[in-house]
Amino acid sequence: MNQVTTIKLSPPYLIFLGDVADLMSAKTGAGLVQWCPDMVVGQYRTSDTGVDLGVPDLNIEQAVEAGAKSLVIGVALVGGAMSQQWAPLLNKAALAGLDIVSGLHTDLADIPGLADSAKQAGVKLINVRRAPATLPIGNGRKRSGKRVLMVGTDCAVGKKYSALALSKAMNERGMAATFRATGQTGLMIAGSGIPVDSVIADFISGAAEVISPDNRDDHWDIIEGQGSLFNPSYSGVSLGLLHGSQPDAIVVCHDASREFVSSCADYRLPSVKQCIQLNLDCARITNPDVVCIGVCVNTSKLTVEARQAYLQQLSEELELPCIDPILDGCNALVDKILTLN
Amino acid sequence: MNQVTTIKLSPPYLIFLGDVADLMSAKTGAGLVQWCPDMVVGQYRTSDTGVDLGVPDLNIEQAVEAGAKSLVIGVALVGGAMSQQWAPLLNKAALAGLDIVSGLHTDLADIPGLADSAKQAGVKLINVRRAPATLPIGNGRKRSGKRVLMVGTDCAVGKKYSALALSKAMNERGMAATFRATGQTGLMIAGSGIPVDSVIADFISGAAEVISPDNRDDHWDIIEGQGSLFNPSYSGVSLGLLHGSQPDAIVVCHDASREFVSSCADYRLPSVKQCIQLNLDCARITNPDVVCIGVCVNTSKLTVEARQAYLQQLSEELELPCIDPILDGCNALVDKILTLN
Repeated sequence: MNQVTTIKLSPPYLIFLGDVADLMSAKTGAGLVQWCPDMVVGQYRTSDTGVDLGVPDLNIEQAVEAGAKSLVIGVALVGGAMSQQWAPLLNKAALAGLDIVSGLHTDLADIPGLADSAKQAGVKLINVRRAPATLPIGNGRKRSGKRVLMVGTDCAVGKKYSALALSKAMNERGMAATFRATGQTGLMIAGSGIPVDSVIADFISGAAEVISPDNRDDHWDIIEGQGSLFNPSYSGVSLGLLHGSQPDAIVVCHDASREFVSSCADYRLPSVKQCIQLNLDCARITNPDVVCIGVCVNTSKLTVEARQAYLQQLSEELELPCIDPILDGCNALVDKILTLN
Repeated sequence: MNQVTTIKLSPPYLIFLGDVADLMSAKTGAGLVQWCPDMVVGQYRTSDTGVDLGVPDLNIEQAVEAGAKSLVIGVALVGGAMSQQWAPLLNKAALAGLDIVSGLHTDLADIPGLADSAKQAGVKLINVRRAPATLPIGNGRKRSGKRVLMVGTDCAVGKKYSALALSKAMNERGMAATFRATGQTGLMIAGSGIPVDSVIADFISGAAEVISPDNRDDHWDIIEGQGSLFNPSYSGVSLGLLHGSQPDAIVVCHDASREFVSSCADYRLPSVKQCIQLNLDCARITNPDVVCIGVCVNTSKLTVEARQAYLQQLSEELELPCIDPILDGCNALVDKILTLN
C-alpha cells in the first residue's frame, strides 16, 4: 500500500537528447546508460554531431518496435526550460504510446498539444521533479529490513553515485540490495522513487518512509541522500530524510577539494568527523543502533599522491574505510557491512 | 523586498464563529481576542447559545461600519472541512468588501460562488494554511537584529503561546520585540507570516529567512517554533526553521506531563537537557553564538506542589529560568535576555 505513492516509471526508455553537444548537458541520459543499460533501448538525437551515448539511434517507430515504453528527456537545459521546438516530436512519441518523462522545470502539460496527445493515447506525462500529492505524515514505526543512507558534508558531493555504486557492489557479491531514489535522476535510474526536496515540508519523513518500505530481514535498501545537515539551505530535507529512513548505517560523502558550502559561500564545510557526529546524534532518534560504516570522497581534483595521503589520513583518524568510489569501488564498504549484525 | 513573500492579512477582523458550542472548537477566534483584541471588531454567531468570545455581536453591515476589513473563520471543524451552509454568509461578506481568511483544509475558492463574489468585490480569499509560491532558497546570510526561536521537546507544547507571551512581556518593558508567526493561528494574530510546515521542502529555511528579515540592532524577533528535532514526523520543518531563523537565543518548550511523542507513540520524549543540547548543536551551524535562555513548561496537569518542585529541580539542573508562562509570565526570560550582549 505504501508504494502506491511513489512515482513509478515504465522502462525501457528511449532517451531524448535533442541537439546537445556536450556531455554535461546530457548527464541525465548518460547516467541512465551507465547505471541501467538494460532499461535503455536507444537514443533520439536531432543532430548527428551531438552527444552520442553509445546506444542505438532510434526514431519513434523504431523505439516502439524495440519495446520502449517511455521517452525520457535526457538533457538538462539552463534553468530547466524545455524548448518549444520539441513539441511536435514529443506529441508524436505520446501518440505512439510512449509515456513522456521529464525532470525539467517546464510542466509537460504546458507543451502545446501534449496533454491532449497523452489523453488520446492513454499514456502518462510524468514530471520527476513533482512529488506525489498523497504522501503520509511520517509515523516513525520501525520497519523490517536493513538500510544504508548516504549523508554528506554538502550537496553535490557524490551521494547518488555512491549509493548506486554500493548497491551494485553488494549485488555483485550476492547480497540483496536495492538502490532507493530520492532525487529526479536517481528516480529515472531506479524506475521509481520520490523527489524528497519537492514534497510539502510536513511530509518529508513520510516520503522517506514510503521510499524504503518493510522488506526481508536480510535485504538492504541503499538510499540516495539529499543536501546536508550542515547546508543552511537544505538541512530540513536532510533531517527529514534521515529520520524517515531510519538507517542502520550511514556513509558520509565528501568532496576533498571543497572548502565552502555550495549554496552559502559564507559557510565553511564541516569536517567529516563533525558530519559523522551530528548525523549519528540525529539518526539515533529513530534508530538507536545506527553506525557510520565509511566515507566516500570525491578526490578528482587531487594528485595521485595527495589522494592516497588524504584517504589514508582520514581513514586513520576515523578508523573507518575511506574511499573514492569512482576509483576504488565500494568493496571496502561491503566488507564493513558484512561485519554488522 | 523579502517581506513581499509573506502572507499579509488586513485587520481589523470580524470573527466568524458559526454555531460552535465549545471553546476548543473556537480556539482560533479565542486566540485572536486574547492576543490581538485591537484587531478584532466583533464576532458573528449563528446561534445565541454558542460560544461567546466577549466581543460585540455584529452582522456583516455592522462589522463593515465598525471598520472591519476581513472576516476570519474563527472555528476549527473536525478535519477542517467547512460547512457548505456557510456559503451564503461568506458570499455576503465578500460582496460587502471583506477579505475572507481561513485556516481550514477546504479551499475557499471551492465554496459555491465565493471566488466570483471575491473577484466582483475586489477582495481576497486567503488560506493561511497555504504557503506563498514565491519563496527563495535559504542563503544563510547573517541578518541584522536579534532573534529568539521557540523550540520544543514535541509538537503542541506551547511554542506559540510562549512566543506571544515573551514578546508581550518584552514590549511591556519597553523593548522592541515582534512576534513572528510560522503557523496559521499565529499568522492571524500577527497579521502576517508563513505557515512553514506547508512550504515545499527545499524552501523551509528560505521561508524562515523571509519571516524574520533584517532589523534594527536592538530589535528582537520572537519566532514561533514548529514541531521538534525529536519528532520523527516533523523534524525536517524544525531544523529548516532553526537554521533559517539564525537564533541568538532559543527557549525550549515542554509539557511536564507528556511521556511520548504526540504523533509517534513508540517514541519517548527527550529530556529537556537533551533537547537543549541537540538544538544548540544544530543552531550553531548558522549562529555560532546561540545560547539557551530558559524553558517554558506546561504544568497544567500537575498539582501546585508538584509544579513548584518540578520547575525548581529543572532550573537547578539546567541553571536556567524554568517557568510556566501561563502562570508565571515571562519576566524571568526577559531578565535573562537583558543579560545577553
